[in-house]
Amino acid sequence: MGNEDSYVALGLKTWNDQIDRADKLFGGLSSEEILREIAPGKNRLLYLWGHLTAVHDAMLPLLLLGERLHPEFDVAFISNPDKSRAEIPSHEEVRRAWNTVNAELRTGFEQMPWSDWALRHSAVSEVDFAKDSSRNRFAILLSRTNHLSYHLGQAVLGRK
Amino acid sequence: MGNEDSYVALGLKTWNDQIDRADKLFGGLSSEEILREIAPGKNRLLYLWGHLTAVHDAMLPLLLLGERLHPEFDVAFISNPDKSRAEIPSHEEVRRAWNTVNAELRTGFEQMPWSDWALRHSAVSEVDFAKDSSRNRFAILLSRTNHLSYHLGQAVLGRK
Repeated sequence: MGNEDSYVALGLKTWNDQIDRADKLFGGLSSEEILREIAPGKNRLLYLWGHLTAVHDAMLPLLLLGERLHPEFDVAFISNPDKSRAEIPSHEEVRRAWNTVNAELRTGFEQMPWSDWALRHSAVSEVDFAKDSSRNRFAILLSRTNHLSYHLGQAVLGRK
Repeated sequence: MGNEDSYVALGLKTWNDQIDRADKLFGGLSSEEILREIAPGKNRLLYLWGHLTAVHDAMLPLLLLGERLHPEFDVAFISNPDKSRAEIPSHEEVRRAWNTVNAELRTGFEQMPWSDWALRHSAVSEVDFAKDSSRNRFAILLSRTNHLSYHLGQAVLGRK
């Protein structure tokens, strides 16, 4: 394995490690616990879980792995703050979507030729990518992994 | 620039972006604000800042960039929880150490040949590295970047 593949493998390992942490943390919460706030007046755990699910779902088209599975999550978990809407997806709906979306990403990552990580992602045009080749799929992987870590640090505060 | 260099450059960019966020977040706090808890009964911002400083300081020998500059931070910010010791480094001491340590890392990163990121870090033996070459310096960079993001997600809760 050359260094190039080794770096991609490490990026994927770091992603998978954080997904595993999130699976354990969120997946083990009861229906009462998921409604707890991470700190007084701050986001509830359910909101964070739905937010992460929506952001990961958007990675599917961004990395050219397929269509979004749950675009309806955005209004509840991205474009509006927590506790601003009466109707948001339920605990079970978020759990199912989280599992489905991350499984779809995992399959996509496994099937993607590793050199594809250096290609442009779908939110950058060919013209702009020609000017700045750092706007590639690996950049998305690293930034979304850190986004997940950021919210994991918060979610851990909401546990008993 | 080949893909290999592009991946390393992205790893470094992600690190630098998180350092910049931490600079802004912690660096802008007053002496009263730095003593605020991120949530009731949880770590104070000063503790998180010192903790990150200690962990980054330990990266210097781990990445073979030099000796530790502040090994005395460990007892206050790693091996003991917050509020368990009467004497810990002051706000100004943490600020100075944070700036010095991260500047030293930045210089080291700039001078390191990029192919060195695929070499073993100092906490793994040559024998073990021969069995698992993923235990390299790039792995440390990715994991410490995520560690920083994790605590940034917490620190942001402690701001007014």
